[in-house]
Amino acid sequence: MLRFHKMHGLGNDFVVIDAREAPVAIDGPRARAIADRRRGIGCDQIVVIEPSDSADAKVRFFNADGSEAESCGNASRCVATLIGGEARVETLGGLLHMSAEGANPSVDMGSPRFDWNQIPIAYPADTAAMPVAWEELEAPMAVNVGNTHAVFFVSDTDAVELDRLGPIIEHDPIFPNRTNVNVATIENPDRIRLRVWERGTGLTEACGTGACATAVAAIKQGKAHSPVTVALPGGELVIEWAPGGPIRMTGPATYVYSGEADL
Amino acid sequence: MLRFHKMHGLGNDFVVIDAREAPVAIDGPRARAIADRRRGIGCDQIVVIEPSDSADAKVRFFNADGSEAESCGNASRCVATLIGGEARVETLGGLLHMSAEGANPSVDMGSPRFDWNQIPIAYPADTAAMPVAWEELEAPMAVNVGNTHAVFFVSDTDAVELDRLGPIIEHDPIFPNRTNVNVATIENPDRIRLRVWERGTGLTEACGTGACATAVAAIKQGKAHSPVTVALPGGELVIEWAPGGPIRMTGPATYVYSGEADL
Repeated sequence: MLRFHKMHGLGNDFVVIDAREAPVAIDGPRARAIADRRRGIGCDQIVVIEPSDSADAKVRFFNADGSEAESCGNASRCVATLIGGEARVETLGGLLHMSAEGANPSVDMGSPRFDWNQIPIAYPADTAAMPVAWEELEAPMAVNVGNTHAVFFVSDTDAVELDRLGPIIEHDPIFPNRTNVNVATIENPDRIRLRVWERGTGLTEACGTGACATAVAAIKQGKAHSPVTVALPGGELVIEWAPGGPIRMTGPATYVYSGEADL
Repeated sequence: MLRFHKMHGLGNDFVVIDAREAPVAIDGPRARAIADRRRGIGCDQIVVIEPSDSADAKVRFFNADGSEAESCGNASRCVATLIGGEARVETLGGLLHMSAEGANPSVDMGSPRFDWNQIPIAYPADTAAMPVAWEELEAPMAVNVGNTHAVFFVSDTDAVELDRLGPIIEHDPIFPNRTNVNVATIENPDRIRLRVWERGTGLTEACGTGACATAVAAIKQGKAHSPVTVALPGGELVIEWAPGGPIRMTGPATYVYSGEADL
């Protein structure tokens, strides 16, 4: 019997499994069965909270296609709410510091990485303005915020055919680990509009690490300042970052239901 | 706290609420909140089992858009499995006889109705070959099997743009209560392939009443005989019917999980 929690952060939805007391084995096929919206439980990602030797907990993230992800910002806020208080959490993408003290949980997502081999991209190149283009999407900034992101600034994010271009960019060989694709419009230095094609999942209402990557890119390029509000289709996140420091993301995490499944 | 069961019949998925012991109030907005696949539980339809004065139970069906449906064949098999044994169940579409004795539950869906004012259509017309056409879809047979269906026989069901034509036909004023849209191909007298645009829901993997309506239309027109297998994208149903008698539908009903939600 699989006991689980169903939660969402800005409509980015998760099956959260608390495996701190008793182990739960999740592999690709089981993750796909759980994520199936009609024959399973249905979610964008599966989040497994496990015991940790070095931190308060260890968290693993599985995409709907069964692949494992290093990090997921919206899911991290849900984990913060479930664990409660202040917590340090191990992930494949690095150590996260979480706080569920306020009305909305905050997660310290670690420091962004900009070196080409840490993003990673396939060969040494300027990651601040990569020498590549896919139709009107050109010269993205690449950044790793626990996972890989390409950030494109455009005049109107809604005008981009992200459902068509997203998977092409995601699978381009220049990104050996694939990439998330962010298409952003600067409304003013306090506010960015953003749509994200998520690696392994597709278009979602909101991507927390995408908001972090986009805010970092905008602040680094002088287009925005910290704290900056990132408005996604599913709602808003506030991102704080200063060069050299960690990224702090604050936003809602909503508990929807608990369940018990034979999956 | 809303206690619920999540089930599916051939991938047509349901939140089933057993309100026989304690009443549960479901209206359009609450149904839409429950059916939301990211911020709610997620389902094609919501099924509420209530006490009945005249039968073993009363069942109400709500579509994902919040509208109430008279009947749902796949959901009825799920109800049969939950209630168990032989049962008589009241619905807006009529009294259903259910049996969960075999490996797959069977539901006696009542007798089909062919009169124009019982389907209903807007004016007296030949319901065996309605004098209407929507592009290549023409002269449907109209039948009521607890809810309204238009059945089109075509040479290749997969070649029809049902996602585009379905909503146009559903909302055509000739169907005052709107209609389900069935596009079927006769493979042989024992087997029909079928895709369905469901009123209030859209394209689904399988529609039980659509399989019943299509089998009845095919048998009545001499294109198939009883029992006939109806192959939908989500799997197969067996339909039995003889003119003048009730329709019997047999097929799988799968229990996925139980849950408790604040919705």
